[in-house]
Amino acid sequence: MADIILIALGGNAIKQADEKGTTEEQFRNCWKTTEHIANIIQNLTSEDRLLITHGNGPQVGNLMVQQKVAQDIVPAHPMDVVGAMTQGQIGYMLQQTLMNHLKEKKIDKPVCTLLNQVLVDRNDPEFEGNNASKPVGNFLTKGEAEELKKNNPDYIVKKVKPNGERCWRRVVPSPDPIANLEGNVIRKLVEAGVIVIASGGGGIPVLEDEQGRLKGIEAVIDKDLAGERLAEIVKANILFVLTDVEKVKLNFGKPDEEELGKLTYQEAKNYYDEGHFLAGSMGPKVKACLRFLEYGGEKAIISSLDKVLDAYRGITGTIIEK
Amino acid sequence: MADIILIALGGNAIKQADEKGTTEEQFRNCWKTTEHIANIIQNLTSEDRLLITHGNGPQVGNLMVQQKVAQDIVPAHPMDVVGAMTQGQIGYMLQQTLMNHLKEKKIDKPVCTLLNQVLVDRNDPEFEGNNASKPVGNFLTKGEAEELKKNNPDYIVKKVKPNGERCWRRVVPSPDPIANLEGNVIRKLVEAGVIVIASGGGGIPVLEDEQGRLKGIEAVIDKDLAGERLAEIVKANILFVLTDVEKVKLNFGKPDEEELGKLTYQEAKNYYDEGHFLAGSMGPKVKACLRFLEYGGEKAIISSLDKVLDAYRGITGTIIEK
Repeated sequence: MADIILIALGGNAIKQADEKGTTEEQFRNCWKTTEHIANIIQNLTSEDRLLITHGNGPQVGNLMVQQKVAQDIVPAHPMDVVGAMTQGQIGYMLQQTLMNHLKEKKIDKPVCTLLNQVLVDRNDPEFEGNNASKPVGNFLTKGEAEELKKNNPDYIVKKVKPNGERCWRRVVPSPDPIANLEGNVIRKLVEAGVIVIASGGGGIPVLEDEQGRLKGIEAVIDKDLAGERLAEIVKANILFVLTDVEKVKLNFGKPDEEELGKLTYQEAKNYYDEGHFLAGSMGPKVKACLRFLEYGGEKAIISSLDKVLDAYRGITGTIIEK
Repeated sequence: MADIILIALGGNAIKQADEKGTTEEQFRNCWKTTEHIANIIQNLTSEDRLLITHGNGPQVGNLMVQQKVAQDIVPAHPMDVVGAMTQGQIGYMLQQTLMNHLKEKKIDKPVCTLLNQVLVDRNDPEFEGNNASKPVGNFLTKGEAEELKKNNPDYIVKKVKPNGERCWRRVVPSPDPIANLEGNVIRKLVEAGVIVIASGGGGIPVLEDEQGRLKGIEAVIDKDLAGERLAEIVKANILFVLTDVEKVKLNFGKPDEEELGKLTYQEAKNYYDEGHFLAGSMGPKVKACLRFLEYGGEKAIISSLDKVLDAYRGITGTIIEK
């Protein structure tokens, strides 16, 4: 049977943590990233299908800094518009480098990037009171945090580290993705054999207002959870969640640290329920994998970008199956 | 016979010249713009098809200012990346507002925005010597112009006005569009009945380097000429070029000023060849219309956004037919 594969790229696929994010750096990273993806594509049959999604945290961060510094000259945009802009930026870089790899490998497959809105519930608990959980922007001193709040009364600013001078950050809601609004169009493209890049940065977060109109909001949707919703619409059977480790670890950093290889859904769910995975890092990745299997997916794989081909072949990675 | 219509929106469709470009302003303009488009869609049969393209000059300008002001903190991106970012931004605003209008009108048609690269020839005369012709960024004093050139030796800075203190601007090449690189994917979508927003800002300008690899360049492709190339690929029969006037004028601003109504291809070509239309304004619009009819299009219409429905019905506008 043919495979429909969704690959969710980690942040390091486009910008390394120690880089400033120059155009050259980001294109170089995208070139390496899409080489791994092209290697997978080379191993697919003509019936197999592939989609790509990606994060946008560092690019949103950079753009928000540019907007803030220039705010007295040029109006800044809210996070939904910034998200759309980074979908354009990153989609372009991934798409162009992937097209170049495919051309060199003489693989004739079209690639495209779709702007992508993801619907969230306006009653999501993340929008209530002080619940917002996703830190964005720089770490701030107490004084800077107070000033940010004073200049932007609607912002939520929280202490996100227990110690140190710079412990405060702005936090925004990270609501659960309900539906990918361009999902049906993406499915048509995938069925037609197009390699689609979509749902970048978790998608542009939108809700339906009281009149039923779509409206962007200041929020960040987890990109792996949003990618999983996309996987459902295109009826994917394999989900890759790529990050910076080859395998998920239990008891990370402790003497009894243990790498996870093949797991059943129930084993993974038990570990998840027992709180083995951190909320801000491996937690949502494992949650996305569990949801994927609950919807009917066959196999969810967490591994690193440079091991993706081996993971596809079943040689490495943390592989969760029903 | 069913129509395939491409609408090329003018700059005022998204940002008015006297606005700063706040998110609210741009969404309000897009809301008005897409209301006109939704009115057209309401008049289409289920077999008719529609595509939208748009400019991005003011948005690129704003983003380049933000990047310049923040350049010591965050690296600035070149014009191809900036173009991709504005395709995301504008595509999102147009798409969301159009989706809301269609929903209110109970029209069930999918809308999507595709990131879009447009191929140009690396031997295009616009890349040679001092030929570059498209001004970008602010008007500069002689001193500012000299400093810009000193800090960016590869920039071309030209005197673009004969008189006044601020007569200098950076100019970039405006090469002729050869091919829409995502054209085949866009055609599939259009055939499937999707309303596609594409080729924004004339498309992301790319060329093939010596190794045959696609590579973005610092250039601006005319959006009407690029839209015309897209119209060819999707086999459009009607091209709308929208601007701020209801009809094209001959002898503009002179005592014998004359509005043009219905024209044959040959009449329009004669006026064009006689130099009636300015290079920076109506010239490329008429050129796009002529090319469209040369390729095989039926009807090219130049009119204003608020008259687009009347122009569609043949009541107004400058209408050029084979």
